[in-house]
Amino acid sequence: MSVKQKGINAERELVHKLWSNGWCAHRIAGSGSSRYPSPDIIAANGNKKIAIEVKSTKKDKRYFSEEDISQIEIFSEMFGAEAWIALRFSRKDWFFIKTGELDKTKKGFCASLELARKKGIVFDEFLRIE
Amino acid sequence: MSVKQKGINAERELVHKLWSNGWCAHRIAGSGSSRYPSPDIIAANGNKKIAIEVKSTKKDKRYFSEEDISQIEIFSEMFGAEAWIALRFSRKDWFFIKTGELDKTKKGFCASLELARKKGIVFDEFLRIE
Repeated sequence: MSVKQKGINAERELVHKLWSNGWCAHRIAGSGSSRYPSPDIIAANGNKKIAIEVKSTKKDKRYFSEEDISQIEIFSEMFGAEAWIALRFSRKDWFFIKTGELDKTKKGFCASLELARKKGIVFDEFLRIE
Repeated sequence: MSVKQKGINAERELVHKLWSNGWCAHRIAGSGSSRYPSPDIIAANGNKKIAIEVKSTKKDKRYFSEEDISQIEIFSEMFGAEAWIALRFSRKDWFFIKTGELDKTKKGFCASLELARKKGIVFDEFLRIE
């Protein structure tokens, strides 16, 4: 399976999980190649609008380019949404981390499993965010 | 060009027009085949969130199934958005009509060019909706 297909599958899984739990969520068409700032998923529960960048990794650390993060933040600002990263480490549950909580690196940003556990929230907590 | 491709092209054209005018807009992935209620486009200008069903026709009348309209209304209610139809008649500009303004038919709903001119608004007016 290609990296792109794995990414799409992870996004679809998250969309289903959100609908199953009373949220409304959809994948954005061509989010990885759009000429405009775009999240992977737009989700809402009526009051709260969330723009989500979805990543999964087999390692215990995931890097993000400056571009990745600025794109979702610009979109969120314009749309009127909160910018979150949904991150799944190998065989672990989903973690949700606000873009502002990522560690800064020389070339961009980084989230380790340790950071996700410390600064992130798990799926059930995400459903209840106010 | 297939009907599906023409539909996608119309959606893309509208997305570009919205970005060019300071709105933020994206096509929803698989909107026509999703198992969940879905609009074709989600758009916003910070305050206002709009779910858009996009249709174009070479005739002077466009029919909508009950299903088409209920899907976008259910999505909009859950998401916290307004439900609009963006409709382009052959060689005419875009008209925007709220789903509640469509004419009821036996099998669903209908928008004629006459109705669009009477109850709809044109693109420039849509940009300024409050």
